[in-house]
Amino acid sequence: MGEDDGINGLPTHCYLMCPRQPPIMASMNFASDNTSGAAPEILEAIAQANDGQVPSYGADDLTASVTDRFKDVFETDLAAYLVATGTAGNSLSLACAVPPFGAVIAHEASHIAYDECNAPEFYMSGAKLTGIAGAHGKLSAEDVNRVLTKYGKGIVHRAQPAALSVAQATEAGTVYSRDDLSALSEVCRTHEIVFHMDGARIANAVAQLGRSPAELTWRAGVDILVFGATKNGALGVEAVIFFKKELAAEFEFRRKRGGHLFSKSRFLAVQMLAYLKDDLWLRLAHQANETAQRLARGLADIDGVEICHPVDANLVFAILPRGVDKALKAAGAQYHPWMVPGDAANGKMIRLVTNFSTTPEDVDRFLSVARDAVDV
Amino acid sequence: MGEDDGINGLPTHCYLMCPRQPPIMASMNFASDNTSGAAPEILEAIAQANDGQVPSYGADDLTASVTDRFKDVFETDLAAYLVATGTAGNSLSLACAVPPFGAVIAHEASHIAYDECNAPEFYMSGAKLTGIAGAHGKLSAEDVNRVLTKYGKGIVHRAQPAALSVAQATEAGTVYSRDDLSALSEVCRTHEIVFHMDGARIANAVAQLGRSPAELTWRAGVDILVFGATKNGALGVEAVIFFKKELAAEFEFRRKRGGHLFSKSRFLAVQMLAYLKDDLWLRLAHQANETAQRLARGLADIDGVEICHPVDANLVFAILPRGVDKALKAAGAQYHPWMVPGDAANGKMIRLVTNFSTTPEDVDRFLSVARDAVDV
Amino acid sequence: MGEDDGINGLPTHCYLMCPRQPPIMASMNFASDNTSGAAPEILEAIAQANDGQVPSYGADDLTASVTDRFKDVFETDLAAYLVATGTAGNSLSLACAVPPFGAVIAHEASHIAYDECNAPEFYMSGAKLTGIAGAHGKLSAEDVNRVLTKYGKGIVHRAQPAALSVAQATEAGTVYSRDDLSALSEVCRTHEIVFHMDGARIANAVAQLGRSPAELTWRAGVDILVFGATKNGALGVEAVIFFKKELAAEFEFRRKRGGHLFSKSRFLAVQMLAYLKDDLWLRLAHQANETAQRLARGLADIDGVEICHPVDANLVFAILPRGVDKALKAAGAQYHPWMVPGDAANGKMIRLVTNFSTTPEDVDRFLSVARDAVDV
Amino acid sequence: MGEDDGINGLPTHCYLMCPRQPPIMASMNFASDNTSGAAPEILEAIAQANDGQVPSYGADDLTASVTDRFKDVFETDLAAYLVATGTAGNSLSLACAVPPFGAVIAHEASHIAYDECNAPEFYMSGAKLTGIAGAHGKLSAEDVNRVLTKYGKGIVHRAQPAALSVAQATEAGTVYSRDDLSALSEVCRTHEIVFHMDGARIANAVAQLGRSPAELTWRAGVDILVFGATKNGALGVEAVIFFKKELAAEFEFRRKRGGHLFSKSRFLAVQMLAYLKDDLWLRLAHQANETAQRLARGLADIDGVEICHPVDANLVFAILPRGVDKALKAAGAQYHPWMVPGDAANGKMIRLVTNFSTTPEDVDRFLSVARDAVDV
Repeated sequence: MGEDDGINGLPTHCYLMCPRQPPIMASMNFASDNTSGAAPEILEAIAQANDGQVPSYGADDLTASVTDRFKDVFETDLAAYLVATGTAGNSLSLACAVPPFGAVIAHEASHIAYDECNAPEFYMSGAKLTGIAGAHGKLSAEDVNRVLTKYGKGIVHRAQPAALSVAQATEAGTVYSRDDLSALSEVCRTHEIVFHMDGARIANAVAQLGRSPAELTWRAGVDILVFGATKNGALGVEAVIFFKKELAAEFEFRRKRGGHLFSKSRFLAVQMLAYLKDDLWLRLAHQANETAQRLARGLADIDGVEICHPVDANLVFAILPRGVDKALKAAGAQYHPWMVPGDAANGKMIRLVTNFSTTPEDVDRFLSVARDAVDV
Repeated sequence: MGEDDGINGLPTHCYLMCPRQPPIMASMNFASDNTSGAAPEILEAIAQANDGQVPSYGADDLTASVTDRFKDVFETDLAAYLVATGTAGNSLSLACAVPPFGAVIAHEASHIAYDECNAPEFYMSGAKLTGIAGAHGKLSAEDVNRVLTKYGKGIVHRAQPAALSVAQATEAGTVYSRDDLSALSEVCRTHEIVFHMDGARIANAVAQLGRSPAELTWRAGVDILVFGATKNGALGVEAVIFFKKELAAEFEFRRKRGGHLFSKSRFLAVQMLAYLKDDLWLRLAHQANETAQRLARGLADIDGVEICHPVDANLVFAILPRGVDKALKAAGAQYHPWMVPGDAANGKMIRLVTNFSTTPEDVDRFLSVARDAVDV
Repeated sequence: MGEDDGINGLPTHCYLMCPRQPPIMASMNFASDNTSGAAPEILEAIAQANDGQVPSYGADDLTASVTDRFKDVFETDLAAYLVATGTAGNSLSLACAVPPFGAVIAHEASHIAYDECNAPEFYMSGAKLTGIAGAHGKLSAEDVNRVLTKYGKGIVHRAQPAALSVAQATEAGTVYSRDDLSALSEVCRTHEIVFHMDGARIANAVAQLGRSPAELTWRAGVDILVFGATKNGALGVEAVIFFKKELAAEFEFRRKRGGHLFSKSRFLAVQMLAYLKDDLWLRLAHQANETAQRLARGLADIDGVEICHPVDANLVFAILPRGVDKALKAAGAQYHPWMVPGDAANGKMIRLVTNFSTTPEDVDRFLSVARDAVDV
Repeated sequence: MGEDDGINGLPTHCYLMCPRQPPIMASMNFASDNTSGAAPEILEAIAQANDGQVPSYGADDLTASVTDRFKDVFETDLAAYLVATGTAGNSLSLACAVPPFGAVIAHEASHIAYDECNAPEFYMSGAKLTGIAGAHGKLSAEDVNRVLTKYGKGIVHRAQPAALSVAQATEAGTVYSRDDLSALSEVCRTHEIVFHMDGARIANAVAQLGRSPAELTWRAGVDILVFGATKNGALGVEAVIFFKKELAAEFEFRRKRGGHLFSKSRFLAVQMLAYLKDDLWLRLAHQANETAQRLARGLADIDGVEICHPVDANLVFAILPRGVDKALKAAGAQYHPWMVPGDAANGKMIRLVTNFSTTPEDVDRFLSVARDAVDV
């Protein structure tokens, strides 16, 4: 990870000494949603919640009010619980829906199947993730239905399919439309399995699709949503939302058993409250989406650059001419080569991530370096 | 938990609007270490670390520097890793030392055995905790040796003892002396098991014992220490410290698999750095210990009050006359009745916890209410 | 295990060459129920079931008929499944009743807590066994009730009690009466937990108590019974019987996942059918019980011998004068010193086990050697 | 499974009454290796081992001698342990080689990945099986190498590859040659993972390849072999053989913890000893292989029948004209439609299995019915 070491050319000690100085030049760090800190509104809220003695381990008023806020946002009754990481949110919620002898259907390149070091399997006591291929990171209802039909429900030798999990937005930066979701949900109903949504980037998807949170989740048949906030401006908080409340019965015990119940729970709650307040979550996501669009449009105009997936959220996947790649790296741009199971572009494709703190200037400087490299 | 609801009599909305107002009167909240927020120095450090793009998932410079700081504090080479909860720290570190068919020896009333909803068993893939009795929350080397001698090492029908875990300070508010630890460590060496220390309140113990961190850990034979910070002023951060570095080989994979690797890891790191800086950790612990002493001394002077354990840290266990208990509750004091396996005082004893933010005024008001109740 | 090596003084090759020869002298092997082979009726039945092609993995007619036989034996509807070991039977059935964050209440010296190398914890995905003391291997309803009352049901920090498991006969060779069981079952109902019976020696208990299998199980409130056959004459088969059938929903998947579904399942089924036929199981158990009585009576008459527990089944626990112990070992008698958690006699007590193949001559020879040693 | 119910048209009770009668007509049961009983030599050996008292739980002489026999058969030092099912053998041995955050590479249609209801994941505490495609049930060294190269060794977000598992013979009835195995083993060495062989049908493979057991296992780089016997004539016994003995360190504890240590272990041992004696295992496998060849040759000559995989062992995969299928079923033939992940013939292909008890007459009758159906 040597390429990540420097921060805008400033030595670390300086960075720590004068933290509130704006960086002198655009950062060109497109390595991850998580390279940014927290949105100022969220930091401020933490500071405000610090004083006084309040009950610990989730018994405080702030934690209680989070559920109420989510009921407003999603216009329905629901159960909501906070954890600090997306890995925990996805793994714990899947464990509430899938028995140890069960299976989760997911995209073969999904984060839960590919990027969690067996966390879902751990929390599900050894249940299986069955990967399915799908263009641009998305699963089609047809493919899911075909796999489920042949899976062997009731046959004791086979893992028993118990949930479908989709990422919204997907790991390829695409989104499922309302119709996509309804079709998938119908397949889930047919095969009597739970419809689970990994919403690590749900804000980006909702911002892009321009429909209500309710429309894009429970009204489309989603049973469980992991509502991410960390990638989009929190320090570290995610909500596990059960629209099908009976699935939540074991959640609190499983969360404690996983070490994910925070003693000073107010600090998770207040992050989420600030994130939801006045649609901050959607504003931050819009910013990230827009800089991604700007980046994608700019790149598409450059000779020899290939955009690999539709850009629906804050991720741009591209294949760059070798010279462009070299010039960008020389100029300090940061991004990762990207490799996913079953993708033909493996070994050539890169992933560029914008986040709420990415500025148009960051993008423009990146594009300018890229364009210059082509012109040479 | 209805008794925990009110915060100093102020309605929640007011509390949120004017957060930096000092509470009008002393809080008398002795319910938990975790009812307080964070120390201002730690909050400030978080704010300072917020700007700029830095690598995620533990690859940032702040995270790297935490290990160096611990090497200074403990005057030795070591491996150190951050997690956000004590449950995670204890469970993950025990899992690095104990196979699935293994057993951990611990006090029968220890937090790991009694208060973690099977988290250690979960992380250890089903290994067992074997509880031993011991006065005032402490295990004696003799008792541990006797149990280990008869346990059945090498017999395939028995769980295989693989670690001893002690809490320092203990859950009863007592501490192990340097000699206590050396004696226990010798038993561990004899039986070839790992010596694990749950240091949720390690700061209180070090502050009380007045010896160096090194003397009270690895020089006394401790192999793994979970160095707590949350109870003593952090928002949420604990360090798992391996003095026996070879035990750390699997830690990072197990942490990720448990969902305990933070994406924005800088926010864990900076808490710990601020906590260690200029001995903040010891200053905060001294404060908590001193108010606990003040509380214990005051209570001991009240007719009919019985102090149940030596007060070596920030915990006071007492049996109160019924009238005193009633008066305190009526006055808004907060504390929990305490029940532990094997304790004769069960059902009568209460636990009073001070923390870094407890003031002498809090204590004095509590004592005053108690005294008045007796005088009546 | 050096003391187990020789078989009646005959070298192994001879033993294999002339297997059907009766041993020349009484065996004096009281080491375990499992030192014997199988009852001839069971071996014969296996041979008879060998021919022909039949469906595998439990789909054969013999397997189907086992459930019907158990319905007859227990005079009720039930679900019954076969496995080959008691460890599997107990662990799998507890896993059907206890969530990963749950706890099983059991005697502190019970086989499941003490002699299974964490098998129950493994199958229960890390749930806990909470040991309770009790005289002569038995739990009292009062003690169980007291522990359950204080356990912390609904408190997220505590494991959640989900089952009580008793061994019938107990590991101390005692039995629970019909009234004992009813009292325990009432406690289970009060605390809404499952009543589980480890019946590794259920035949010995039923034979001793002289009441119907129904009276001693479901009519007394037992929900799950592991009906052992191996210790009492089978090669290797146990039945897991769910009187509360809804608890069986996951059993077949969990059994397969544990590797305990036999491909040639007819060979488990036919053992159990032969064992149940014409009350063979009770006849074999009577034999074992009677030789145990003979042994206990004889020992009790010897000066300096102390019988440690009532002898209700096929186990005799005794403390022998040193000279008697030496003489018996010198004469080739085989038995194990016995050590259980919480027993004052630890380090002095031995366990003597009779089984269906133990003869009065075996016992008399043992007693004669013991008596002679005292007379010296 | 209704089609499996009848046994040669004889009612079950008759079958039980007159078991040693040869079936009147050829059985045409090609449903599974496991529809047969045990080879007479093995049954006889069990009967011979029944008498006398011997140590239990694996401490008997017969069990000890099994390891010696395997050392002879494989011409090397090794550690060998017995279990009763192949599921247990594969799952337990993989658990000795793969950490909970690890991954096993296997064919996507392999038994361990597809037909074990998550048993390997259970025993590996939640490790993952990564399926790779490969023609005719076989993995190529190139494909395995490519997957391993991109897998992400050392990256904390990815499961860590720890073993390659191949089935010999494969689930498609093909075999790996000595050269195939050497090439795969070299890939394992390069990537520092364990080479594991699921030998549920190892006898059929060795019989077919005509090379020594040593050549086809450890000399070709295999580290762990599960040496199956059940499918090929035992009642229920498999050996886990560690050529790399240091991998066996935890096996006995894990076996006990899984409930797979038999109390009357002599009955597992004696089956294996009889199976190995005078090359019985190879003779039985030859018989099965030859009838499979006879069946395949006969089918290949029938118009419209397609043989899907090379027939190297005792499995024939075929696509039958609809009329042939109908006629065979009408005549009482038994076999399963076969469906495997990633196979184009899914939904059309059937699997025919011969075993040691299949006679040429069984095959000829089957072929005759098939031929007649075509002629019509």
